[in-house]
Amino acid sequence: MRYELYYWPEIQGRGEFVRLALEDAGAAYVDVARRPREMGAMSKFLESRSVKRPPFAPPFLKAGKLVIAQTANILFFLGPRLHLAPKEEAARLWAHQLQLTIADWVAEVHDTHHPVASSLYYEEQKREAKRRAEIFNVERQPKFLRYFEQILERNGGRVLVGNAVSYVDLSLFQMIEGSRYAFPRAMAKQERKYRRVIALHERMAARPRLAAYLASERRLPFNQEGIFRHYTELDNRS
Amino acid sequence: MRYELYYWPEIQGRGEFVRLALEDAGAAYVDVARRPREMGAMSKFLESRSVKRPPFAPPFLKAGKLVIAQTANILFFLGPRLHLAPKEEAARLWAHQLQLTIADWVAEVHDTHHPVASSLYYEEQKREAKRRAEIFNVERQPKFLRYFEQILERNGGRVLVGNAVSYVDLSLFQMIEGSRYAFPRAMAKQERKYRRVIALHERMAARPRLAAYLASERRLPFNQEGIFRHYTELDNRS
Repeated sequence: MRYELYYWPEIQGRGEFVRLALEDAGAAYVDVARRPREMGAMSKFLESRSVKRPPFAPPFLKAGKLVIAQTANILFFLGPRLHLAPKEEAARLWAHQLQLTIADWVAEVHDTHHPVASSLYYEEQKREAKRRAEIFNVERQPKFLRYFEQILERNGGRVLVGNAVSYVDLSLFQMIEGSRYAFPRAMAKQERKYRRVIALHERMAARPRLAAYLASERRLPFNQEGIFRHYTELDNRS
Repeated sequence: MRYELYYWPEIQGRGEFVRLALEDAGAAYVDVARRPREMGAMSKFLESRSVKRPPFAPPFLKAGKLVIAQTANILFFLGPRLHLAPKEEAARLWAHQLQLTIADWVAEVHDTHHPVASSLYYEEQKREAKRRAEIFNVERQPKFLRYFEQILERNGGRVLVGNAVSYVDLSLFQMIEGSRYAFPRAMAKQERKYRRVIALHERMAARPRLAAYLASERRLPFNQEGIFRHYTELDNRS
């Protein structure tokens, strides 16, 4: 099966959680919107009136005749097929539950720089962003990190689900990577409290296929258009 | 199977999407935290160190030995068991995708009154709320309503998924019900554009078991503690 991923070509964003799973599994896939000739394919599909099950927003994945949207839903579908999820129902639901918690976390990270509206520039909501980011770094970020640290601890420390690497581990890797980009000062102060999470991040980064991907041009750099953005004034030390 | 639902006892909140499915299906369930003697059961479970797969937050559902959290995940699990979802994989993923889009919508509605932080009072973020709510009602609410109107249209107009009522229809009912409570003026102006969505809301409200539930004491009234809150200053007419 050759998968087709549709996502914005300029950012890691939510699509990156899917890319990491596809890359780590060595799956055959095309990042459609990044092929020069097909930059318009995504919006064309989203705006088509003949699509019976249109996504609300990217990313979406085509797998044969199936079109699947919502990041966590895509990973739920791909997980067992890429050998990055347990097959038993209860464990699959548990992995999905953790992924949905990461989805909530992603939305909160995004809203640190866009607390009023995604349709406004950051500069139009700087004052609100400062308030939101400060509370995020003091309350929410530690709450999410503590939660995943605890899950790792209760599961033996190496992986989040069962006894093999799953797509959720790759997504947690991305949360650390992105948080370090967006909030280097806040993270530097916090990381030592979450040793299992940080160790997992290092183990994921060292996986051969993932390391090759991260060093390649396919891995877009973080920038000021994605979910994780670095603004010094939002990176409080507390 | 007798299900046990754990959620805050004073609000509809996210738990209500699960309650609506259980009630419409006539399922045997206990709303644990609302039983006077067991009000502490939920926090006790969340704080226990011996739970191997702890939820990040309520609602969560116990089904035999399984504990499942994240509203959309609970409904994904319950759907086929309550005969409120298709059984075929592609259609189940599609229903779930729509439910996850509703989950995003719910988070945006919540943030109209809490754009800075859930841990602060509304009164501490009124200014920010006014900005966020105004853009929500002008841009986001119509975008979500238009999307679901379009899905109904492409599927023949009666239900969102396949040809039978699913938990997603019940959730869409709740979005209209809650939006009318929170934003009566904005909704009054908008509703005529989304006739299929509004007609679906009416058909759901008329389903015998759902109607009985809505008229019962089990249905908590909307209030100023839940996801949908009514503040006149956030209900713009535009």
